[in-house]
Amino acid sequence: MVRPGGRSARVQEAVHAAVRELEAESGREALTVPQIAARAGVTPSTIYRRWGDLRELLSDVAVERLRPEVPPENRGGLEADLEAWAEQFLDEMSSPPGRAYIRDALLGDPDGSNAGQCSAYAADQIDVILGRAAERGEPVPDVERVLDGVVAPMMYRILFRPGLLDPAYARRLVDDLLG
Amino acid sequence: MVRPGGRSARVQEAVHAAVRELEAESGREALTVPQIAARAGVTPSTIYRRWGDLRELLSDVAVERLRPEVPPENRGGLEADLEAWAEQFLDEMSSPPGRAYIRDALLGDPDGSNAGQCSAYAADQIDVILGRAAERGEPVPDVERVLDGVVAPMMYRILFRPGLLDPAYARRLVDDLLG
Repeated sequence: MVRPGGRSARVQEAVHAAVRELEAESGREALTVPQIAARAGVTPSTIYRRWGDLRELLSDVAVERLRPEVPPENRGGLEADLEAWAEQFLDEMSSPPGRAYIRDALLGDPDGSNAGQCSAYAADQIDVILGRAAERGEPVPDVERVLDGVVAPMMYRILFRPGLLDPAYARRLVDDLLG
Repeated sequence: MVRPGGRSARVQEAVHAAVRELEAESGREALTVPQIAARAGVTPSTIYRRWGDLRELLSDVAVERLRPEVPPENRGGLEADLEAWAEQFLDEMSSPPGRAYIRDALLGDPDGSNAGQCSAYAADQIDVILGRAAERGEPVPDVERVLDGVVAPMMYRILFRPGLLDPAYARRLVDDLLG
């Protein structure tokens, strides 16, 4: 449906940019579809046709913001690489904006595809770390085990269980996984 | 603010019951505050004053529905008890109603207290299992380790990562935790 570089892609970029600008200017609670449409230079019906409602639009914008911008840092060893990545992941996801994006991504996501994309971002970053380690000849766990042992506990505590969210916790999860 | 057995408690029970009845009759999407108020015999402003909006009310109702009704099954050993509990937890939470309650609990929860209550339910059940094992003289892990190793991966996959959600997965998480 979306032709990259086509009108559809331009509309998406304009609408996402309008949400980011208006949120920065007047905050999250003040956002409305007509206001976003006006800023993006499209009609409200264009937004409703494409996104259904504001929550689904905010979910798409949140997923874009959760997309990693750089490959994980290379510190020369699996444990160091995973620890650095886990610490940064926890720091970003447990920050107020990180929590807001996770909530938005989950809430306006009837088919679960945006939540799945968030998990795919983490899996892709972990794949890069595991691939580097394998090239170094290090034994590597399966990516799903890293998601279960490191990513899942951090996300569970961010969403359901306050406390325990410091860099030492992220490192401990990695150490427990790698034994 | 809530006097158990007082008017406040009666209002809560009537409103929660009205939500459950109306949802069963006409489904989740059809729920409105005026309709719920009429069924519960209260004014809409009573609901808005107490719950803020429909999403916060649905979050409270969802948390009530996620409250365990019976203590975890006693199979006479830590591994068997944890496996049975994890299998049942996964079965209930990954079912369509379970997923809907988790979503509701998270969405209408500005201060995170309802999500925290969901986690406390799981921790309490696990505490019972660990307490029994300790009385039998079995070595027991810390409850937070059980949450990280068993509950978190299941909840993470329910919310973010489809697939892998079968009883064998729940048992494998327990086996990995207990070594």
